[in-house]
Amino acid sequence: MDFKTVTVKENILIENNKKAEELRKNLQEKGIFFINVMASPGAGKTTLLTELINNLKKDFKIGVMEADIDGDVDAERITKLTGVPSIQIHTSGACHLTAQMVEDAIKEFDIDNLDLLILENVGNLVCPAEFDTGSHLNMMLLSVPEGHDKPLKYPLMFQVSKIAVITKIDTLPVFKFDIDLCKEYIHRRNKDTEVYVVSALKKKGVTELADALRKQINKYLLS
Amino acid sequence: MDFKTVTVKENILIENNKKAEELRKNLQEKGIFFINVMASPGAGKTTLLTELINNLKKDFKIGVMEADIDGDVDAERITKLTGVPSIQIHTSGACHLTAQMVEDAIKEFDIDNLDLLILENVGNLVCPAEFDTGSHLNMMLLSVPEGHDKPLKYPLMFQVSKIAVITKIDTLPVFKFDIDLCKEYIHRRNKDTEVYVVSALKKKGVTELADALRKQINKYLLS
Repeated sequence: MDFKTVTVKENILIENNKKAEELRKNLQEKGIFFINVMASPGAGKTTLLTELINNLKKDFKIGVMEADIDGDVDAERITKLTGVPSIQIHTSGACHLTAQMVEDAIKEFDIDNLDLLILENVGNLVCPAEFDTGSHLNMMLLSVPEGHDKPLKYPLMFQVSKIAVITKIDTLPVFKFDIDLCKEYIHRRNKDTEVYVVSALKKKGVTELADALRKQINKYLLS
Repeated sequence: MDFKTVTVKENILIENNKKAEELRKNLQEKGIFFINVMASPGAGKTTLLTELINNLKKDFKIGVMEADIDGDVDAERITKLTGVPSIQIHTSGACHLTAQMVEDAIKEFDIDNLDLLILENVGNLVCPAEFDTGSHLNMMLLSVPEGHDKPLKYPLMFQVSKIAVITKIDTLPVFKFDIDLCKEYIHRRNKDTEVYVVSALKKKGVTELADALRKQINKYLLS
């Protein structure tokens, strides 16, 4: 990549980081916990989120932002299957969300009636990791069909995520995927990342993950 | 996305398009056909390329460029399994290749001893579609585990690809994936896109795809 492009990108990132810090602080003052969910296309983000929201909605007032380059199916599906309010964000071709885009989208919610805000970012293992959305927690999903080597190839995504979820473990008999090796690769990128293994389809591991999130949210809301 | 960012991006794209046109013309003068292969992380790019190269190498002198944000495994694997020269390109965090990056990488090959250049782009369904690499053919892969709805969510990738390959069809019994519906969605984005279905693992459909590529390459080299 030539020098000029890199310089331009750095400036954009600096501006975005400033806006993200501001947004994080504003949400904190309003007592809202914000989770940013990232993964490749088709890793099972919407399916897992549906299960998690149905588990967590008895304890928290939840709002969901679904980001896609195009298409309206995810927001509609989330609200239909969970009953919580959701909005669709179109990125007009962009491969990630910026903190500014999140701030604009949040205005669509009844903000005084929220404890927990969940963003399903654009399906992409690269760019969303570079752009701080203003979230309090980054959670990334890696599906079994993608392969256990992904932490070697997409280092930043695993580095910035405090929680990594290995999804679609019901398909383990079909793919060569070594969970222990994958965990080792993830911890090379970030030794503190908590790794969970789930099958949203078979409802395996979802309760454990929801409990871990509940603990983090409660700790934050009480602090 | 704010106005400033969009403007910056447009300038980068205009410069890249110019460089790509120049590169495409230079390769044409040297009688080299250039294929750009794009897909999500873990869609099976390297595995399919290995099979295709082993089929095509008797007819063409092939060189392979493997682009990744980090990691050296793919180039090593390609050369080990096919015997053709390959080089690894590290993008230093960037989510796509630019035409300039390709031009720089090509210098590493014995250029007078090549008919066919294959680029495995960074695993990403978004940004690589925006940046013309200077290729003569864009080929994209969509794996069955990702789901048949992806052409609705990542329109540009399907629009710019003349060949779309549905991979990992041996896993069809495990996933809800409607091939006919997927083809319909793909043709909404580009009615001329040729769609192939393969399982590189089970060596199904690879010969048909290799023959289609052979036809395109020969047509180009004889023109």
